[in-house]
Amino acid sequence: MKVRLFFKADAIVEEQVAGRVAVVIDTLRATSTIITALANGATSVIPTDTIDRAWSISKNYQDDYLIAGERNGIKIEDFDLGNSPKSYTKEKVAGQTIILTTTNGTRCFKRLDSAREVLVASLINSKALANYFKQEEEIILCCAGVNGVFALDDFITAGRLIAYLVERYKIQLTDEVLTAYHLYLQNQNDLLSILKRSKSGQNLINLGKEEDIEYIINCKQLKVIPRYKDGIISVKDQY
Amino acid sequence: MKVRLFFKADAIVEEQVAGRVAVVIDTLRATSTIITALANGATSVIPTDTIDRAWSISKNYQDDYLIAGERNGIKIEDFDLGNSPKSYTKEKVAGQTIILTTTNGTRCFKRLDSAREVLVASLINSKALANYFKQEEEIILCCAGVNGVFALDDFITAGRLIAYLVERYKIQLTDEVLTAYHLYLQNQNDLLSILKRSKSGQNLINLGKEEDIEYIINCKQLKVIPRYKDGIISVKDQY
Repeated sequence: MKVRLFFKADAIVEEQVAGRVAVVIDTLRATSTIITALANGATSVIPTDTIDRAWSISKNYQDDYLIAGERNGIKIEDFDLGNSPKSYTKEKVAGQTIILTTTNGTRCFKRLDSAREVLVASLINSKALANYFKQEEEIILCCAGVNGVFALDDFITAGRLIAYLVERYKIQLTDEVLTAYHLYLQNQNDLLSILKRSKSGQNLINLGKEEDIEYIINCKQLKVIPRYKDGIISVKDQY
Repeated sequence: MKVRLFFKADAIVEEQVAGRVAVVIDTLRATSTIITALANGATSVIPTDTIDRAWSISKNYQDDYLIAGERNGIKIEDFDLGNSPKSYTKEKVAGQTIILTTTNGTRCFKRLDSAREVLVASLINSKALANYFKQEEEIILCCAGVNGVFALDDFITAGRLIAYLVERYKIQLTDEVLTAYHLYLQNQNDLLSILKRSKSGQNLINLGKEEDIEYIINCKQLKVIPRYKDGIISVKDQY
């Protein structure tokens, strides 16, 4: 199995993704929120970049949707949910379509139109993905980054996924993939500390959202394999 | 002290370098060769990208120069030296100007015209650089990469330099810098193995040049601080 990696959304080379399986990683917090929502019974998640676009999409739905997202760490006015994964409880999200504003995640999805399949990863479903990939010849890990800049939280999540792949299969590692793997190995016994030191972690702490980092670290591995297709993320499989 | 890092030559944002101190890292093997040559008494090293350009530069010199470089691991015909750092002995290089073809290193130097100072690093002089930087407010580490692709050997060298800086000064680390630091920490007791697994390491092994990796790992820390200025690298200081 070949594994390749892009450091950030802007670094994705679309021709290198064509016809392959791509994995979008935006750990703090979009993909963690998406996975939690689907694990708790949300029908689907529609990622979008702007607030206006979120409202516009919501017009296609009746009562079975929630509109979600934050700006500067505060839930957007009149939105149903913010972007704290732990607030996506069964009680709130089961049976609902979530329209979620996420700038970096959306930027990533948009660059993956040519991929054969686009899946969604975070620290909380990396084991399920590793199990799911048993038949795959080549996987492209796409770290979203933040506003065009590399983000450690995404890269260490790639590292955890790689560690699970290395345990299970014979893997060819590029230098990027080997680096992510070793970043994870160095920190696997204390992921909380390194996430808190990361830029995204520091931003969350400054916004009083440290509990979101703790939720992601302490969450049991979830079984959902979310797939993005035609602008909508839903559960493709469970592993 | 702020430390920032670019993953590869093509990723260098010239405006972000302007007026700052930049460090070029191309461990396997250009910067290791340059540092070894200068430590062994070469007057200067002139990096250039093509063989034709190397011959053209050599016309400016009389007898006190050596022309050096490889293509596909083989010394270029009629050149005096290849690109194996350990072949740059005192006997060969003392008092000589070395005209050295290096594609990736040259690509990096060309993007750093706006920097206040451009220095040259490898695993073999990282301690000297860390000592030298005691007065510096901001340092930009520029990993050369290989043909536009990230290279682990450069990144782990950045990690060793960062480790020495962290031991000595109060450092602000970006996510890139934190990642390089932790890659180094994970591998500091066996740098040989990880370098051998890297793409550049594998290429050298396939060319029968494994001894170059061993030389770089086993070399004592050299004291030279090489500076690139107006196309020429010479010793600025010794630490």
